[in-house]
Amino acid sequence: MKCLIIAAGKGSRLKQKGDCKPLIHLLGVPLIERVIRSAIEAGADDFYAVSGYQGGRVRAFLDDLSACLRIQITHIINKDWEKENGLSVLKAREHLHEPFLLIMADHLFDPAIARKLMSFSLDDGEIALAVDEDTQNPFINMEDVTRVKTNGKKIYNIGKSLSDFNGFDTGIFFCSPAIFSALDQSAEKQNNTSLSGGGRILANKSRFKAVKINGLFWIDVDDPTSFHRAENALLSNLSKHTDGFVSKYLNRPISLRISRHLFLKTDISPNFISLFSFLLSLLGAFFFFLGGYASLVIGGILAQVSSVIDGCDGEVARLKYKSTDFGGWFDAVLDRYADGFLLFALTYYVCVSNDSFVLAFFVGFLALIGTFMNSYTADKYDGLMKQKLGYEKFYFRMGRDTRMFIIFLGAMVNQPLFTLALIALITNMENIRRVFVLYKNG
Amino acid sequence: MKCLIIAAGKGSRLKQKGDCKPLIHLLGVPLIERVIRSAIEAGADDFYAVSGYQGGRVRAFLDDLSACLRIQITHIINKDWEKENGLSVLKAREHLHEPFLLIMADHLFDPAIARKLMSFSLDDGEIALAVDEDTQNPFINMEDVTRVKTNGKKIYNIGKSLSDFNGFDTGIFFCSPAIFSALDQSAEKQNNTSLSGGGRILANKSRFKAVKINGLFWIDVDDPTSFHRAENALLSNLSKHTDGFVSKYLNRPISLRISRHLFLKTDISPNFISLFSFLLSLLGAFFFFLGGYASLVIGGILAQVSSVIDGCDGEVARLKYKSTDFGGWFDAVLDRYADGFLLFALTYYVCVSNDSFVLAFFVGFLALIGTFMNSYTADKYDGLMKQKLGYEKFYFRMGRDTRMFIIFLGAMVNQPLFTLALIALITNMENIRRVFVLYKNG
Repeated sequence: MKCLIIAAGKGSRLKQKGDCKPLIHLLGVPLIERVIRSAIEAGADDFYAVSGYQGGRVRAFLDDLSACLRIQITHIINKDWEKENGLSVLKAREHLHEPFLLIMADHLFDPAIARKLMSFSLDDGEIALAVDEDTQNPFINMEDVTRVKTNGKKIYNIGKSLSDFNGFDTGIFFCSPAIFSALDQSAEKQNNTSLSGGGRILANKSRFKAVKINGLFWIDVDDPTSFHRAENALLSNLSKHTDGFVSKYLNRPISLRISRHLFLKTDISPNFISLFSFLLSLLGAFFFFLGGYASLVIGGILAQVSSVIDGCDGEVARLKYKSTDFGGWFDAVLDRYADGFLLFALTYYVCVSNDSFVLAFFVGFLALIGTFMNSYTADKYDGLMKQKLGYEKFYFRMGRDTRMFIIFLGAMVNQPLFTLALIALITNMENIRRVFVLYKNG
Repeated sequence: MKCLIIAAGKGSRLKQKGDCKPLIHLLGVPLIERVIRSAIEAGADDFYAVSGYQGGRVRAFLDDLSACLRIQITHIINKDWEKENGLSVLKAREHLHEPFLLIMADHLFDPAIARKLMSFSLDDGEIALAVDEDTQNPFINMEDVTRVKTNGKKIYNIGKSLSDFNGFDTGIFFCSPAIFSALDQSAEKQNNTSLSGGGRILANKSRFKAVKINGLFWIDVDDPTSFHRAENALLSNLSKHTDGFVSKYLNRPISLRISRHLFLKTDISPNFISLFSFLLSLLGAFFFFLGGYASLVIGGILAQVSSVIDGCDGEVARLKYKSTDFGGWFDAVLDRYADGFLLFALTYYVCVSNDSFVLAFFVGFLALIGTFMNSYTADKYDGLMKQKLGYEKFYFRMGRDTRMFIIFLGAMVNQPLFTLALIALITNMENIRRVFVLYKNG
């Protein structure tokens, strides 16, 4: 599927974020790269990019991206980039002789929108627009958005100043080559070179269709407010349905801030963050070994900080499109070693500071084995729960976030033996519960 | 696909194993059930069973099996079961008007044979026979087998007394209804009511085809020798390519004998065997806790015995068609707990009997975490290796069999600290190696 991407404009309302709008980094990735990756995920594989303002920089970036993603990106230059956006579309005329996806470099979108649009069966001479009818959509800038008037699948009118409207232009089109002659006509007859002008010509011929995408995410990143909203939307998307209570209300809100303001502004790799979180845990374990309440407190804090940072690797990986199978597995392996060292060190702390050595030894072992087995049984349990309940549903899950938080609290109140006993109890109980759940459903 | 199964004969040469041949248990499962399950695996789903000798017992068993496997089994009664087997086939005439699979209740076979046979495109009036050309096949009783003379896809002649032959009749046919009139003709013209007689009629018309299945397993279970060979074949099939060195040369040969002579003769479930092996490990751990060399030796022996028994659950499950997802997972979870308790108890043994408590404590912990992580990383590592090398290839794998054997040997020679140190070293080294292997190939 061919995809035409318009990246010619200047975007002066975002100039505080960077001079060349398509290349402005949003959470560590240029806007145009996010848009192209969404289009690829939806099924596009042959790109035509119209550049204008700072075109050299845009084209250099796209050449790198093309090599990195192994896709074809053909450059189209629009020297009239200061005029309206219909001209940018017209420059692509000679390349596009069959239906194509038309997107804007500054409109982020859920790939599901493009997929839905491309599955619309276009008749000859038609174009289709993804239309959002949600008047409460918090990501729409109501003062600047292009409005549309639809009835069923038909679009009757389009324009920023419509007073009678019932939907919004998402900037994502599925076009037959008829769009080019419509733009010609709009320029000739109405002296209007905007994409909306061409749309109105087709609307008058009943050749402009609406595909409703209500509820799916899209945003026109046009000014600092929408930029900020887009960041928030992408970040809030990172919370996982497997996040436990502690993760959801404590760790995740903090880790998202750390990712946003620290890691995403650097080139630090997710695996390096995993390693860093692991080393923090090791340092925490070292303090437990030293003995004494002060060390216990420092160790507990380090364990909890490590647990928070442990969320960042996945966040950075997903936001920067760096998720790998190995990365997720490596993180899990390091977490298990970190769990092991922390519990072992805490057991040691209790063994040397407590009279009942045997009790401490035994309780520490049960906490260790219970914790390991919690992780060991998690895959199978999660698998069953997803299969039974679907991916989005909540289900009970006692995870690492909770265990680390208990260690942190236990260290603060100087109750290491009680902490180990509590962890031993809840992890092993949870493991036995999982065996029964899986037996009943196996 | 319809399947006709001949289960009418008496099988007097196997009478020491049981009076009703189709119901004779081979490794815990009646012959006819093994044959039906192979046919189901190959794609048959509508069965017609011809019973004769002790037909009431056979039909009662098949009714139970039909309910249990949720398949249709229609009974056909042959009162002339003492005569030749062609008559049993003829009794099914009214039920079979399209191509069907024809099998014998006493011929075990690899489902791949039936699959290959059923993918042969039968012309009108033809039948096809799975033919084995392997004259060295150790599962063939050369004195009793029916011989065939083929040329390419054609069968020229068939009979037990052929002197010019180049293949063997496996007893697995794919027939069009033409078989019935051929059997009629053979009976009328040659007074021969055997299946081979019908085959010869069709061979003379060039309507008898050969499908070569060289290398695939099948066996006619006809006398005590072939019964024993069939048992050995099924048992040797149970060794897994993931079996490590200790498992392959020590544990598996013993566990196969225990399964064969003990568990397969009872109704003990695989999950119960898993639990029994787990309890043996717990008992071993208990002896380690007691302290003293004698207890150490008993604990070590119990650990090794538990490790051997740990192979039986899977063997029994596979031989009795009782493999479940839950069973495999439950076994793995119990193994991890057993590993944990044994290493913990051994660490305790060393801690209380050794001067350098801290060293013992630390080494024990490293052995414990290394062991857990060995199991934790195994799935991913095995997955990669299978993907890279294919399922059958050998690759290096330090598994539970080796760890348990080291504990056993270490206990025998009274070197528990050295044992823990060795396990700590090799398991953690192996884990680090796996991380690098997966990183390089991720």
